[in-house]
Amino acid sequence: MQSMLLIICAAFWFLVIPISSETNVWVWPKPRTFSWPTPQATLLSPAFTIAAPNHTHLSAAVKRYLHLVHTEHHSPLVTPSVNLTPSYDPLQTLFVAVSDLAAPLHHGVNESYTLAIPLSGPANLTAETVWGAMRGLETFSQLVWGDPSRVAVGVYVWDAPLFAHRGILLDTSRNYYPVEDIVRTIGAMSANKLNLFHWHITDSHSFPLVVPSEPDLAAKGSYGPHMQYSPDDVTRIVQFGLEHGVRVLPEIDSPGHTGSWAEAYPEIVTCANMFWWPAGSKWKDRLASEPGTGHLNPLNPMTYQVLKRVINDVTTLFPEPFFHSGSDEIIPGCWKADPTIQSFLSNGGTLSQLLEMFVNSTLPYILSLNRTVVYWEDVLLDDNVKVPTTALPREHVILQTWNNGHNNTKRIVSSGYRAIVSSSDFYYLDCGHGGFLGNDSQFDEQEGDNSGNGGSWCGPFKTWQTIYNYDITYGLSEEEAKLVLGGEVALWSEQADPTVLDARIWPRASAMAETLWSGNRDDQTGLKRYAEAMDRLNEWRYRMVRRGIRAEPLQPLWCVRNPGMCNTVQPFVS
Amino acid sequence: MQSMLLIICAAFWFLVIPISSETNVWVWPKPRTFSWPTPQATLLSPAFTIAAPNHTHLSAAVKRYLHLVHTEHHSPLVTPSVNLTPSYDPLQTLFVAVSDLAAPLHHGVNESYTLAIPLSGPANLTAETVWGAMRGLETFSQLVWGDPSRVAVGVYVWDAPLFAHRGILLDTSRNYYPVEDIVRTIGAMSANKLNLFHWHITDSHSFPLVVPSEPDLAAKGSYGPHMQYSPDDVTRIVQFGLEHGVRVLPEIDSPGHTGSWAEAYPEIVTCANMFWWPAGSKWKDRLASEPGTGHLNPLNPMTYQVLKRVINDVTTLFPEPFFHSGSDEIIPGCWKADPTIQSFLSNGGTLSQLLEMFVNSTLPYILSLNRTVVYWEDVLLDDNVKVPTTALPREHVILQTWNNGHNNTKRIVSSGYRAIVSSSDFYYLDCGHGGFLGNDSQFDEQEGDNSGNGGSWCGPFKTWQTIYNYDITYGLSEEEAKLVLGGEVALWSEQADPTVLDARIWPRASAMAETLWSGNRDDQTGLKRYAEAMDRLNEWRYRMVRRGIRAEPLQPLWCVRNPGMCNTVQPFVS
Repeated sequence: MQSMLLIICAAFWFLVIPISSETNVWVWPKPRTFSWPTPQATLLSPAFTIAAPNHTHLSAAVKRYLHLVHTEHHSPLVTPSVNLTPSYDPLQTLFVAVSDLAAPLHHGVNESYTLAIPLSGPANLTAETVWGAMRGLETFSQLVWGDPSRVAVGVYVWDAPLFAHRGILLDTSRNYYPVEDIVRTIGAMSANKLNLFHWHITDSHSFPLVVPSEPDLAAKGSYGPHMQYSPDDVTRIVQFGLEHGVRVLPEIDSPGHTGSWAEAYPEIVTCANMFWWPAGSKWKDRLASEPGTGHLNPLNPMTYQVLKRVINDVTTLFPEPFFHSGSDEIIPGCWKADPTIQSFLSNGGTLSQLLEMFVNSTLPYILSLNRTVVYWEDVLLDDNVKVPTTALPREHVILQTWNNGHNNTKRIVSSGYRAIVSSSDFYYLDCGHGGFLGNDSQFDEQEGDNSGNGGSWCGPFKTWQTIYNYDITYGLSEEEAKLVLGGEVALWSEQADPTVLDARIWPRASAMAETLWSGNRDDQTGLKRYAEAMDRLNEWRYRMVRRGIRAEPLQPLWCVRNPGMCNTVQPFVS
Repeated sequence: MQSMLLIICAAFWFLVIPISSETNVWVWPKPRTFSWPTPQATLLSPAFTIAAPNHTHLSAAVKRYLHLVHTEHHSPLVTPSVNLTPSYDPLQTLFVAVSDLAAPLHHGVNESYTLAIPLSGPANLTAETVWGAMRGLETFSQLVWGDPSRVAVGVYVWDAPLFAHRGILLDTSRNYYPVEDIVRTIGAMSANKLNLFHWHITDSHSFPLVVPSEPDLAAKGSYGPHMQYSPDDVTRIVQFGLEHGVRVLPEIDSPGHTGSWAEAYPEIVTCANMFWWPAGSKWKDRLASEPGTGHLNPLNPMTYQVLKRVINDVTTLFPEPFFHSGSDEIIPGCWKADPTIQSFLSNGGTLSQLLEMFVNSTLPYILSLNRTVVYWEDVLLDDNVKVPTTALPREHVILQTWNNGHNNTKRIVSSGYRAIVSSSDFYYLDCGHGGFLGNDSQFDEQEGDNSGNGGSWCGPFKTWQTIYNYDITYGLSEEEAKLVLGGEVALWSEQADPTVLDARIWPRASAMAETLWSGNRDDQTGLKRYAEAMDRLNEWRYRMVRRGIRAEPLQPLWCVRNPGMCNTVQPFVS
């Protein structure tokens, strides 16, 4: 066979396409162990079925995957070097066994699974929980391709994630996304074995969530009646998440980032609807981190009445045991614009005391609702306005880092807090598209090449490789690293909305998904595996596009079809 | 009325939204003169019609715009401060008069028009040519909004472009775009008064054009039977262009960028399908500017036989009097890989002589087909491989610049050549998304912020402001500036395909469209008008989205609805 191959190669000497030792049948993210000693395949029987225990959410997943494997007919871009073995019977059944049908979809739930597809006879998927079973179903679906559908056989997979928290943040306040966009995103997350949708629901720009006990917040603070999320919408999204093994973590950012609350309750918001950076004032005296303005006023008792009703309703709508309370970017100028706060400060009070008052008035309430609270790191690490660790019980509080790369992760975990990593240097998907401010003269440039950061504070663009290669426990001790729960890529929506949603997120979120699931290094060599990852990610990106996700392309199709030929060095003989 | 406004403002003092002096009814690109002394509007009669002379292409445009103004019902994001005047009769008719119905859609054709919509009675659009009439119809359509449709009255517009050549380049070789994507793009170009679609059809990666006399080129060199452009497809695209006032300029890039030709004719292509940068070799000894490889061999007579058949067929398929012959990025290593060229060189020949031989063997033939030839600047300005001016008759050759900003524009026009500006520092739409090469270790970075250019050779991302502010005649004398025909933004497709097409092009191409149509400075102040341009471009972007173009957002909707509030300085009293 090899000599035949040599003859063929010699006849087409001008087509010096590297011969990959890979099968070109891949699972993304790469499983922890994947054994396929003799790559072979058999047909998927037209009567193929998945036999699984009865469980509301798992059964929905089984139904979905059964439909997928019968209808997807993915055509790999590089023809798999896998023998279709006609002597084997078509695969008739995948049996799914789950030990603990009751384990809820909470942080740290067991997501491991084993998948065995023998050369003949039924396939078996076993998992501790239904959520692990869903991961295994996804893996199985990626081992099916072609028309008629064929499936890899002689495969044994054991798999489990390295990190428990693997998420995407979407900001639905600065621009609105219809429910369809959100569920499509959650579906794609599930396909990438991501398990946490961090929904940054509200901010200063709009308040799209209909809170039953405070309906005016959305009625007046949303972008309009067609740009709201009703309780039914939330239920649908949460349910969709459960059927896909994706938690839905709500964030109600406060006390900053609350300008939109002022449309219903102007009295509880300081500096609302003011120009964000008054002419002639210094940067430190601006009123907001960006336009528009507005912070909840910690001195107004009504603030807590409104906020607690919101929190209560949100915990009712979202079963998720984590609750994200924001608390980022307190801008002194905004609080200082309020007369009552001015009095407080002139009587010797500090802005940090104000924030601590706010935390002390809200955190116990959230805890009383049986929630673990996630805050942005600012609440502890901000240079100016922050609270002491005594205000933040380590067993109930998790901090999410976004500034200063690995340094802040270190500060958080070395203080004994659990950390979620969303470093803006690595994980911010919106960066690199310039600034969104109007009247910005920095781009009026004739001579230069507009070098630098492309006008975006967090530029340049975070490439998939940047994301893939980032080690979220870099620089930590082994003990410290245990406090890193995982990471989230973030799509802030100043310059994003449904027109660009898929392409901004995918396939870059897939890059993080693999790193957090099975790592970014080769088992054998210990080297970063980004070179072969590009070939696999290309294939996966095309498969996602076929599944309805408008993920952006990484290379010319020519490169995808000729793996290695577009590399920067030559790993193959030419 | 004003005192009433003050009372309203006082009652909503916390909503300090700046009151713009603008009407918020805008035309993009801004017309050269737009007089609307008393902004008023009337309804568009349900029986409204457009009466225009009979002309194949104009009649198609009339039919299209008639449908648009009756059905679009654009809802401006900022409510126009325009009185709907019930005492005026609804507008019944727009009369269109054209002086010269025969003028073809060629470079420099008169695109001026006047549009008068009086307070009552019919509106009148007059133009020298049908192409000017199409520009006027677009302007008219943007003066219609609301449901039921209303139209601005008391308006007088005189309009004409500053630059005759206003284009978009799309590369359909590195990745393929279906015909639907191309016609949608041409439609959007027309709405932006852009008039030239530069179709970079072929390159080393694929040869998607079915050339009737050389069918093997696409049969073997395309990405597949469903990723080709048939003669019927081309006819449809050209026809669509004519009905939208958009020329379709074909580029058959040669002698470089021709690797895909080798699938059908390996004997005429040097270094085809070789690894582009052999291990251990220096950058200067690479075989291609990027993967993949392949140059036409100027020493092989068959090269010209094939190429001339291609050129002949392309000029038959495309009526456009310009023909783009490419000629960029001759990489010495590729030609040097060929034994016959090695002999030529060892006998004292030079690579520049080879290129001159190629030009001398092709340019006269193209000219004999009554075409003006556009080359990339490299043919004259490349450091290593270039031809003398004697080989490039100034009356028949136009050079397109892409390197070195305004410096190369200057070099071209000061040599007496006409120039088309596509500076990669300003007009390359693909930049800033990282590199497409595989196995690229530069993104494996834990400490830094990956600052710099985002890994893209032409990074960072070209923001709409960068594009808007660029003056393509910067640094030129008045006489030199006359040789600048115009500009083109370019979407090279290494990292683009249909999933991201609209968002990569729009609204950034709109920014160039206005600068080349009516400039980027305020008539009164002479200052760059980018601040108010953002407000108008936002509105126009949303209108494009409603018309089916997935243009990317520039700001949170909150900023769009509150013009000026997201600026970097405060132009309004807060």
